[in-house]
Amino acid sequence: MQRPIAILDSGVGGLTVVKEVMRQLPREKVIYFGDTARTPYGPRPSDEVVRFTQEIVSYLMQYKPKMIIIACNTATAAALEDIRSMVDVPVVGVINPGARAAINQTKTGIVGVIGTVGTVRSRAYEDALKRLNPNIHVVSLACPLFVPLVEQGNFRSKETMDTVRESMEKLKDIPLDTLILGCTHYPFLSETIQEVMGTGVKLISSDNETAREMSTILQESGKLAHGPELPIHQFFCSGEPKMFKRIAQQWLGEQIELTPVVWQIPKIG
Amino acid sequence: MQRPIAILDSGVGGLTVVKEVMRQLPREKVIYFGDTARTPYGPRPSDEVVRFTQEIVSYLMQYKPKMIIIACNTATAAALEDIRSMVDVPVVGVINPGARAAINQTKTGIVGVIGTVGTVRSRAYEDALKRLNPNIHVVSLACPLFVPLVEQGNFRSKETMDTVRESMEKLKDIPLDTLILGCTHYPFLSETIQEVMGTGVKLISSDNETAREMSTILQESGKLAHGPELPIHQFFCSGEPKMFKRIAQQWLGEQIELTPVVWQIPKIG
Repeated sequence: MQRPIAILDSGVGGLTVVKEVMRQLPREKVIYFGDTARTPYGPRPSDEVVRFTQEIVSYLMQYKPKMIIIACNTATAAALEDIRSMVDVPVVGVINPGARAAINQTKTGIVGVIGTVGTVRSRAYEDALKRLNPNIHVVSLACPLFVPLVEQGNFRSKETMDTVRESMEKLKDIPLDTLILGCTHYPFLSETIQEVMGTGVKLISSDNETAREMSTILQESGKLAHGPELPIHQFFCSGEPKMFKRIAQQWLGEQIELTPVVWQIPKIG
Repeated sequence: MQRPIAILDSGVGGLTVVKEVMRQLPREKVIYFGDTARTPYGPRPSDEVVRFTQEIVSYLMQYKPKMIIIACNTATAAALEDIRSMVDVPVVGVINPGARAAINQTKTGIVGVIGTVGTVRSRAYEDALKRLNPNIHVVSLACPLFVPLVEQGNFRSKETMDTVRESMEKLKDIPLDTLILGCTHYPFLSETIQEVMGTGVKLISSDNETAREMSTILQESGKLAHGPELPIHQFFCSGEPKMFKRIAQQWLGEQIELTPVVWQIPKIG
């Protein structure tokens, strides 16, 4: 019986990380928790985010995960260190993998970060980048209008293009060559953002970079899943399950149909 | 006193990894060993490569490295597991990071690998890719004419273009979108290879990917260097030091002048 990887998020955004784990490491079993009853975490005070994250991790520990992924920028910024001291398995957030990928990518040494007001105010990306490499110049910009666009499913309209162009105006004259999408919602807008920034700017998403980093850490500690059996993933949410299930199936596509999924609403909060 | 990262190679090729460590993690101190007296490793029997690599690691252990990087495809394929069982610090090769980056990158799931005859025959990349993700389709091709071109400094001539085009003919009709440069010499030819393969194919070099993976493992184990002091790097070679020094200075550029370097020929072999 292989031990799963536990992935948690304030809602459905972390499913982007699940999709990447399924793509990059199809042998790994995932258990996912979306705290849809209490989403969004962005506007909440930091200590509340820490408490919610601790509650979810406590719940997931009964499944004996071999690793925990905090697939939410806000929860990573607020709670990563608390969760690390709480459990005895590796805990990976979405900020360090994105920072490391940006450092790998940049030639100019000038890296942009866009995120929610909370993430930008926390300076979490700036700290992560500077801790690895003090020579990196970081330019951060809050884009509070992007999450509502995504939640309306409004990825490619003229309104979206106008909003993205206007929001990112301040970055246009800065010679950055790498831009971190510091919010799990933003990859849905990546085509529009790429168009506004031009092809000379490489966009970094935390979903695939976090899955890759997870792969490194599992392999280094000899904990990669092996053998021919296909994993059975499990999804939990704290809110209304129908909508969550619909979004998850839409996002994870056929792969969900390939593996039985157990839906369950834990008592929490 | 911070502990260094030990990087070793059969010759000068591993300096590409040193350059990336200096770029991505400028706080880390590097000690490098180029076995220039016994280069190349490619045509040697596997057990000899294992013995040489063990000798170099024994030598470098006196400097109490916190991590060992085998920056040579041939030595990684032959000796990675032996070195892992020999020392009690993390040992990173160049094959897993390249494989992981390719899995992260590919959309079609079809990955090409070019390398020396020895590397391709060992199936090391194929094994590494399939271990992580059995769904990846791998196409390998030995390009024995590439190393001589690089050693002649012949990166961008018409002869080089013709040789690269002819050598890679067999890959042209395969719908791969990602190509691993499975030899530390090949990044010197990357412009020509990119021209031949077209912009639809992403090239993966092990130098930056290995440095990035090293960063992940160091951070995960809480062993990243910190503090303001600039590291003093040390370089060793087993052969004639003048040529080695010239190539290292040419490749590592001004950064070598910024930090004192100790040149030393160890008694070995």
